[in-house]
Amino acid sequence: MTQLIEERYFSSDPGQRQVARSLYEGVKDLPLVCPHGHVDPRLLANENYDWGTPVDLLIIPDHYIFRMLYSQGIELDALGISRKDGGAVEQDHRKIWQTVCDHWYLFRGTPSSVWVRDSLRDIFGIDEKITSENAQSLYDAIDAKLHSSEFQPRELFHRFKIEVLATTDAATDTLEYHQKIRASGWSGRVVPTFRPDAVVNVLMEGYAQNIQRLSEVSGIDVTDYRSYIAALEQRRRFFKEMGATATDHAAPIAYTGQLSEREAESIFQRALKGDASAEDARLFTGHMLIELARMSVDDGLIMQTHIGSYRDHNPFIFERFGRDMGADIPTASEFTHNLKPLLDRFGREKNFTLILFNLDETVYSRELAPLAGHYPALRLGPPWWFYDSLNGMRRYFENVVETAGIYNTAGFNDDTRAYPSIPARHDLWRRACADWLAGLVVHGVVDEDDAHEMAVDMAYRLAKQTYKLEQ
Amino acid sequence: MTQLIEERYFSSDPGQRQVARSLYEGVKDLPLVCPHGHVDPRLLANENYDWGTPVDLLIIPDHYIFRMLYSQGIELDALGISRKDGGAVEQDHRKIWQTVCDHWYLFRGTPSSVWVRDSLRDIFGIDEKITSENAQSLYDAIDAKLHSSEFQPRELFHRFKIEVLATTDAATDTLEYHQKIRASGWSGRVVPTFRPDAVVNVLMEGYAQNIQRLSEVSGIDVTDYRSYIAALEQRRRFFKEMGATATDHAAPIAYTGQLSEREAESIFQRALKGDASAEDARLFTGHMLIELARMSVDDGLIMQTHIGSYRDHNPFIFERFGRDMGADIPTASEFTHNLKPLLDRFGREKNFTLILFNLDETVYSRELAPLAGHYPALRLGPPWWFYDSLNGMRRYFENVVETAGIYNTAGFNDDTRAYPSIPARHDLWRRACADWLAGLVVHGVVDEDDAHEMAVDMAYRLAKQTYKLEQ
Amino acid sequence: MTQLIEERYFSSDPGQRQVARSLYEGVKDLPLVCPHGHVDPRLLANENYDWGTPVDLLIIPDHYIFRMLYSQGIELDALGISRKDGGAVEQDHRKIWQTVCDHWYLFRGTPSSVWVRDSLRDIFGIDEKITSENAQSLYDAIDAKLHSSEFQPRELFHRFKIEVLATTDAATDTLEYHQKIRASGWSGRVVPTFRPDAVVNVLMEGYAQNIQRLSEVSGIDVTDYRSYIAALEQRRRFFKEMGATATDHAAPIAYTGQLSEREAESIFQRALKGDASAEDARLFTGHMLIELARMSVDDGLIMQTHIGSYRDHNPFIFERFGRDMGADIPTASEFTHNLKPLLDRFGREKNFTLILFNLDETVYSRELAPLAGHYPALRLGPPWWFYDSLNGMRRYFENVVETAGIYNTAGFNDDTRAYPSIPARHDLWRRACADWLAGLVVHGVVDEDDAHEMAVDMAYRLAKQTYKLEQ
Repeated sequence: MTQLIEERYFSSDPGQRQVARSLYEGVKDLPLVCPHGHVDPRLLANENYDWGTPVDLLIIPDHYIFRMLYSQGIELDALGISRKDGGAVEQDHRKIWQTVCDHWYLFRGTPSSVWVRDSLRDIFGIDEKITSENAQSLYDAIDAKLHSSEFQPRELFHRFKIEVLATTDAATDTLEYHQKIRASGWSGRVVPTFRPDAVVNVLMEGYAQNIQRLSEVSGIDVTDYRSYIAALEQRRRFFKEMGATATDHAAPIAYTGQLSEREAESIFQRALKGDASAEDARLFTGHMLIELARMSVDDGLIMQTHIGSYRDHNPFIFERFGRDMGADIPTASEFTHNLKPLLDRFGREKNFTLILFNLDETVYSRELAPLAGHYPALRLGPPWWFYDSLNGMRRYFENVVETAGIYNTAGFNDDTRAYPSIPARHDLWRRACADWLAGLVVHGVVDEDDAHEMAVDMAYRLAKQTYKLEQ
Repeated sequence: MTQLIEERYFSSDPGQRQVARSLYEGVKDLPLVCPHGHVDPRLLANENYDWGTPVDLLIIPDHYIFRMLYSQGIELDALGISRKDGGAVEQDHRKIWQTVCDHWYLFRGTPSSVWVRDSLRDIFGIDEKITSENAQSLYDAIDAKLHSSEFQPRELFHRFKIEVLATTDAATDTLEYHQKIRASGWSGRVVPTFRPDAVVNVLMEGYAQNIQRLSEVSGIDVTDYRSYIAALEQRRRFFKEMGATATDHAAPIAYTGQLSEREAESIFQRALKGDASAEDARLFTGHMLIELARMSVDDGLIMQTHIGSYRDHNPFIFERFGRDMGADIPTASEFTHNLKPLLDRFGREKNFTLILFNLDETVYSRELAPLAGHYPALRLGPPWWFYDSLNGMRRYFENVVETAGIYNTAGFNDDTRAYPSIPARHDLWRRACADWLAGLVVHGVVDEDDAHEMAVDMAYRLAKQTYKLEQ
Repeated sequence: MTQLIEERYFSSDPGQRQVARSLYEGVKDLPLVCPHGHVDPRLLANENYDWGTPVDLLIIPDHYIFRMLYSQGIELDALGISRKDGGAVEQDHRKIWQTVCDHWYLFRGTPSSVWVRDSLRDIFGIDEKITSENAQSLYDAIDAKLHSSEFQPRELFHRFKIEVLATTDAATDTLEYHQKIRASGWSGRVVPTFRPDAVVNVLMEGYAQNIQRLSEVSGIDVTDYRSYIAALEQRRRFFKEMGATATDHAAPIAYTGQLSEREAESIFQRALKGDASAEDARLFTGHMLIELARMSVDDGLIMQTHIGSYRDHNPFIFERFGRDMGADIPTASEFTHNLKPLLDRFGREKNFTLILFNLDETVYSRELAPLAGHYPALRLGPPWWFYDSLNGMRRYFENVVETAGIYNTAGFNDDTRAYPSIPARHDLWRRACADWLAGLVVHGVVDEDDAHEMAVDMAYRLAKQTYKLEQ
């Protein structure tokens, strides 16, 4: 059993496993580079952070977990998820925890089950299987740890060997917590990421208010497309001063297309009045992706795009609980035609890097690897969201690397809200890489020396280099 | 060789194989739950059923087999398939059998070859490879068995340990054979399934006659959309009285969309006159899927949809031989947008289950698993048709379970017309499950206790629960 | 290490590996049938061919290699690729070679790296890893071999055991080098393939001149659609006389659709004036695919289609360097609907074979295998381009064979410009087949006798039979 834990996620073939283990040994203790994720900077701004209960830590922020429970008939109210209208939800966290443990069997075979298991064992020192029976004693054990000083986020940051952690922040964010972290003199490196979705997506609820807020924080009175662009550029400068090396952009599809300034202005004005159509949104986002790429060419910020999620698919959940509630569903993507206008302008730029994330695995081998294997500006992000998993990684390696190599990828990022799960996620990736590389070795595709180099590149160097985090 | 047969379909890695074998031991003798298939109820209505020849049993009803032979230049006439015009086809079943055996090499590596091989060995006790040379002696051996009393369908039913068998029946079917089975006092449980395609798809040849027939069997004079709906509801009540727990619906695409009653009426009237267009069919089917879901919410019948087949792709084959002649070709599917109108209305219903089957494997990880991993009403059917195979099952497990878990799936169903192949098909599934679960165990994803539970769930419980067959 | 080389690309499971080795032994020395590729016939027309430098041999003609280098910021000029405008590019081939070797790590895990490694070892006798350090000594070693008489293309042809090699030639080609090969009395069999893309794709630059050239070589004054068709038929006769057994056709999508002669004429006339639109091109290509199929039914030439490449995606590269410069990107394909008009007319023809190649792997199991597993006229080509790789082959086997069997495939072809890599490519295929078949054996799907037969079919017979190369 100990051996099984130590060699988890490796091939059961003894030859491959031995090589995998050796490759893993070479990377398991490397620092963690976390260039994209959703950790709340408040955790690290506060020297005495209060984690709340095990449910606050592990359930309420984790849409992977409550989506699965919801799919089996457990209402989000019963899991303590806050309602937008402030209506009553379950407050008894011991009861919620019991409900979760009673249904933990639902997660058999899922990434959530192994992230939680590995985190409990490796971070909390709790090596027990989650069951109905031990739910309350587990709760006690986790709760006790949470209130110990070694579980303070800053302590964990060092214990996790995080070299750098990037958060994801709205364009209108004042980065108050990042400022606080800097001012505190603490040694951990935490950088923001510029994510202007709420002022780019003209269908976002409250778009005019978001623009109003943009005016306020930028000090530029945004009344038209030109001042809008100027304000975005101002914010980027501010983020860069605060340590940002990257931007991030979500879009339902990868469409890009240049509008005339007149067209852009016209849509922008409709959006301010709340009159923008779905087609306006498509065109404006497609235009802005090119414009944001242009800004990246100018200011050197790495550009990330996350494409393909149909957000808030379940209107009941959206109305009652809001965004990011486990009701986002992937859709088919197309990049070869859609990305061409942007690539025609900036695909050859050597000082520009565009990292692509997407939720349609069929484009890995068909479009993304061929594109990244040609255009100097492109890099492929690691498998995202539902595919941040053992099988998702295997499919990614098998479909991407033969055409793009590993050096047109951006290494790994954990993309997580769940701070204590960061080491488990990197460890899964490192093990999956080691096992895949071991497969290449025992099949005679690469030699063991190259495999060791590749393991380090995939675990550490590629993320650091791609996101310009070498300093 | 004996060992190879006993451990067929298991990994060749000794560690994984040992676990697979142990998991398989725990499920191989469980009863068979068959909640969806196409067995003719006449087989079981008749105490002295005449199977006909080995060709009647194994070739003529099996479009998997004659499609492959046709693809290599053998005309269906030469295989004894009846022509719609009553024209002459090959009558010499020994000659047909010889033709099949002469070309049996075509099936190397296909599911048909292993189903037939496993059925011959396990059901008929014939452990010989099919070749040109032994064609006639095989014919003799099969023929002899077919005419023995132990091969009577009801005998086989018990020998196969079938706990329940659902047939698939037109909405206008009087269920005469089901009535006969019930009346006979025989202990086997055989239930119908309500499949109203011929009165829902307005392009179906003879649509008006089908509606006329609906009037007759329902006792409701169907003259407009309202009486049409009433007649469907009447038939559902009748099917339910006859033991049905489920309905089934085929559609080329997953489109759903509510029509006004006026629009629905208008299309229905055009259809009665034979004037419905392709667009009418798309809209009416999309509307009826929602309406049929509404009926399921009301009467509790499980709803199945089979999406994505381009039926009767080869016009020559359709004109000469009719439907279901191996000329159905899958097409790309989309669920995230298409299913939303239905899910907006009924996706959260706890007393409603919609089981999705489809023929586009790219939607497993991209759309189906995320949808089923969120919406309480959704379950995923097992891999269908061309994917009811070892590789099809592996891809299904690898693409579905990480996101949806196994508890948002509907277990297995054999979906077969070929009654004697039922045990071979369940056995293949059980072995494939055991091997996949063994992989999870040796990779340290689940422990062996959980794997045993999951094996039983996948082999038996999930189908029984999902289709409400617990009684 | 020697063992690893001998058993490269086989499973690391000892059981499977042993069977794979045995299957491979049965096919490794079979002659090479090369029914589709892009070798320049000049190589074999000339008794004293000058290969030029190692860079002329291995880098400049290989878009797999320079695309990857380009993706990492190395300009094609620096790799000695000729510019259309005749502008200066790097001329120092030793310097180019050093650049390539300095960046050879980029190819880790790619097919290029194993093709080059295997070719150097097996053809050149150079068993060294490519590194920065040994770049110049490798250059010397390759250069020396290239100028030895044993490296003359005709010598290699026999050493490689090439039974027949098909080139790919424009419809307007006079086949002068094929004539020269014939006239020389040399025993090697080299045949042309009729590829009329430049006179079928009405958007091709210089379309009118291409048609003018067609008039000249055919001796038919092409002024309208009818004379155009007559000229194509004349060229096909000529190619057939010169030994051709096949035609080949590229198209961005698989669309087929019959035009009236009047519509075809109208588009053709617009094309001659340079006025054809993108829609004209789509319709005319779709029409001509049917017309070319009709010609194949008449003259017996095997028809190949290569579907799904967005050619010359990077406008800068196209303007500066021209076609086939590593900037072609795959797109999604659809066959079920698109191919129906062609199949309705010729899908049942027994004297017609249409071999489908495509770049969208999602259609393997969903559309191509079901179509090829039904229509007598269809065969599936081996995995193409980016998928001519270990993983590409595995995915192809796993997705195609269960539904179509291997006997609806066309065996292997190397599709290469890189003459010295031909044995390495066939060897990779043979090893991949052996390993996949060994998997079927150890999983109890086929027996070892069948696997041996299948191995020979896949390595040799299927290509020979499908392309009518038995003589």
